[in-house]
Amino acid sequence: MRKILVIGSGKSASYLIKYLLDKSDSENLHIIVGDIKLSNAKKLIGDHRNANAIALDVFDASSREKAVQNADIVVSMLPARFHIEVAKDCITFGKHMVTASYVSEEMLKLNKPAIQKGLVFMNEIGVDPGIDHMSAMQVIDRIRDNGGKIILFESFTGGLVAPESDNNLWNYKFTWNPRNVVLAGQGSAAKFLQEKSYKYIPYNRLFRRTEFLEVDGYGRFEAYANRDSLKYQTAYGFKDIHTLYRGTMRRVGFSRAWNIFVLLGMTDDSYVIEDSENMSYRDYVNAFLPYSPTDSVELKFRHALKIDQDDIVWDKLEELDIFSETKMVELQRATPAQILQKILMDSWTLSSEDKDMIVMYHKFGYEKDGKRYQIDATMVTIGEDETYTAMAKTVGLPVAMATLDILNGKIKTPGVQIPISKEVYEPILEELKDYGIQFTEKEVPYLGYNPLNA
Amino acid sequence: MRKILVIGSGKSASYLIKYLLDKSDSENLHIIVGDIKLSNAKKLIGDHRNANAIALDVFDASSREKAVQNADIVVSMLPARFHIEVAKDCITFGKHMVTASYVSEEMLKLNKPAIQKGLVFMNEIGVDPGIDHMSAMQVIDRIRDNGGKIILFESFTGGLVAPESDNNLWNYKFTWNPRNVVLAGQGSAAKFLQEKSYKYIPYNRLFRRTEFLEVDGYGRFEAYANRDSLKYQTAYGFKDIHTLYRGTMRRVGFSRAWNIFVLLGMTDDSYVIEDSENMSYRDYVNAFLPYSPTDSVELKFRHALKIDQDDIVWDKLEELDIFSETKMVELQRATPAQILQKILMDSWTLSSEDKDMIVMYHKFGYEKDGKRYQIDATMVTIGEDETYTAMAKTVGLPVAMATLDILNGKIKTPGVQIPISKEVYEPILEELKDYGIQFTEKEVPYLGYNPLNA
Repeated sequence: MRKILVIGSGKSASYLIKYLLDKSDSENLHIIVGDIKLSNAKKLIGDHRNANAIALDVFDASSREKAVQNADIVVSMLPARFHIEVAKDCITFGKHMVTASYVSEEMLKLNKPAIQKGLVFMNEIGVDPGIDHMSAMQVIDRIRDNGGKIILFESFTGGLVAPESDNNLWNYKFTWNPRNVVLAGQGSAAKFLQEKSYKYIPYNRLFRRTEFLEVDGYGRFEAYANRDSLKYQTAYGFKDIHTLYRGTMRRVGFSRAWNIFVLLGMTDDSYVIEDSENMSYRDYVNAFLPYSPTDSVELKFRHALKIDQDDIVWDKLEELDIFSETKMVELQRATPAQILQKILMDSWTLSSEDKDMIVMYHKFGYEKDGKRYQIDATMVTIGEDETYTAMAKTVGLPVAMATLDILNGKIKTPGVQIPISKEVYEPILEELKDYGIQFTEKEVPYLGYNPLNA
Repeated sequence: MRKILVIGSGKSASYLIKYLLDKSDSENLHIIVGDIKLSNAKKLIGDHRNANAIALDVFDASSREKAVQNADIVVSMLPARFHIEVAKDCITFGKHMVTASYVSEEMLKLNKPAIQKGLVFMNEIGVDPGIDHMSAMQVIDRIRDNGGKIILFESFTGGLVAPESDNNLWNYKFTWNPRNVVLAGQGSAAKFLQEKSYKYIPYNRLFRRTEFLEVDGYGRFEAYANRDSLKYQTAYGFKDIHTLYRGTMRRVGFSRAWNIFVLLGMTDDSYVIEDSENMSYRDYVNAFLPYSPTDSVELKFRHALKIDQDDIVWDKLEELDIFSETKMVELQRATPAQILQKILMDSWTLSSEDKDMIVMYHKFGYEKDGKRYQIDATMVTIGEDETYTAMAKTVGLPVAMATLDILNGKIKTPGVQIPISKEVYEPILEELKDYGIQFTEKEVPYLGYNPLNA
């Protein structure tokens, strides 16, 4: 029996563990699921004979070391900041490791020892980052193998509500960490390359410089820029690329309405609102508007943001009940962002019948024999139910497949890495098709940002 | 001879030292001016017989201790972060101390030892903070002594160009540190009290929620909110105040135009622009605008910010030459804010003939015998020349007067303090009148923020 230690049994672990259990007989696997709460771990494996659950606190060195030592490969589904101690143990005891998280500085330092010991340390192999890397590099390598030179790459991902469960005016529900959604785009300006020029978008304009994207069968989406679109420029080999842009997808109209919160300062997480626990939602909104002895909060709001009363944006705001005098914030010493998150969770929490959806859209522009071409590739995955969500599926499956491929020697190049080599993406993208995760490609005219090229 | 050690001989030291030298015979004073550059110190004292200059590095403990030990009182005109070692020496050797800077946490910790040793540690005794504290507390104490209760306090200060030197469309030139002007208002939201409600204004709206102020003989000004208007709520004794607001004054129209820079992200100091040294001003502006193969930078700019071409805001931007293809940024690895500062310094640097101006405006609303009243107090000071500026005068004179008043025992209450007690403000405000620094008071109807009260 090959022993796989999976640490953490949160949302995204469900699909991962199901996949491994389903393969456990044919692949001769034993799955050990470790969680700080034993009951969480037990829930995911049921009474499967090829699995057992253990209570595991990653900060308890001796039990952590023992668990790592006892495994052939370790999968960490913990939040990214908790990986490093596990990773060091993996070096010490000579075990491969897999995570869906961004490669941290600390993790990168383990590259040399991992290579010396012949260990694969695979990271960023969830959905975004993960499936985006693999699906993009497959097309990029194919274009390059055929003599093309990439001049444009744009990549967009959205975690959204599935069309059949889409029943609010924002066409949005929280399918992952709500806090990250509220804070999205804050910090330094978004930075990207557009026709060889570096461009910068500050937070207050981020949600007003969106790009529209059409996905066959699913209609129109919009995307706003991620903080750093240039992050993978070197990894993807884009030395002289003209346009490089990564973004987040929403349904059309979300960003224009979201921008209202940004402009009023409701997404600010840097200070605490006085007496927040005793405020109504209406009091909270009023704190961002000037005092008036006569005008209602609604009137001041529309006046301050120049919103017509028949604008759909106004309906979106009212749908959230932000002007309620009776709904109370209740949170003590809360930041504007924390209060906004609570208000949104009232409206945007998935119900048990709701399904989520992952959408991905890549654009590849390239030159070949003096001509310019473009390929657009799209992928849509719908969740099955509240446990087997599209998010859990697209994060968990590639992690699980990579784990098995490493055990089986299909993935063998050692070192701290992300899934951008053929050795990694080819078998995984192929196998993902069996689970309905598949990209549709289209040749389209290359436009770049220059309609004169058309 | 009473020995006064003045450390630092920057801009604001000129008036301070002139005042002390002028009084040196009658008051039996010897002034020692210490600066890291001896020549700077020498320049300010000339060949005055009651003064000498010394080279003084505040980080060199032994020469610093020697200089402090040799004085009867120490005035530090260094940047605020350099005061603390001097202050500790003053405790050790039993010397009074005066600064124009905000009281730091570290300085506040010296309150007990200062009281134990009977030492006056006077801070925030320049213009803002300084003259604002003194002039406000004088009116506040008078209202209270007459049985009134303060319910509104608003206080505004502006460092501006004098009307006779005001020859640009912004009605603004840099009269103090340009960097502080570019970064003004950044960080957490501005916070204040308006009719008993806490209000918060995020940076992207700060320059759009201004208040107009009329100063007799000088016309109309506008003010935007300072970061923390509530800072002196306790010190001023404003327990149940309805409205508490502190702001910065500009000429009308400045803020609406400045907001353009804020919205485009040009005041951001948190990241570096790629290849900044080789950019023209036009390239810099273009980095904040979308790519277009056809539209000019000007057209994209007007479109993005929705500016009509006959809007005065547009003339203000053109006056700064920000669309120049030939003027180069030249700064290496510069932030957007650093580049903007350079562009503005081309246009807004005071020439040798230019005069500056300090404007201050206080509003005091109070209740007495069931009725509501309001007093507005204003002060305008114009600079004499490029050395004896209004800024140097209003910062330096109160520091100098406090120094002498402490030596003469007029100010004697020991401890780390700001100038809000009668003992301090009465003699100084009286003496400032001799230098033309004087407030004009007007009784006006109390409006608060409620026109229905009118």
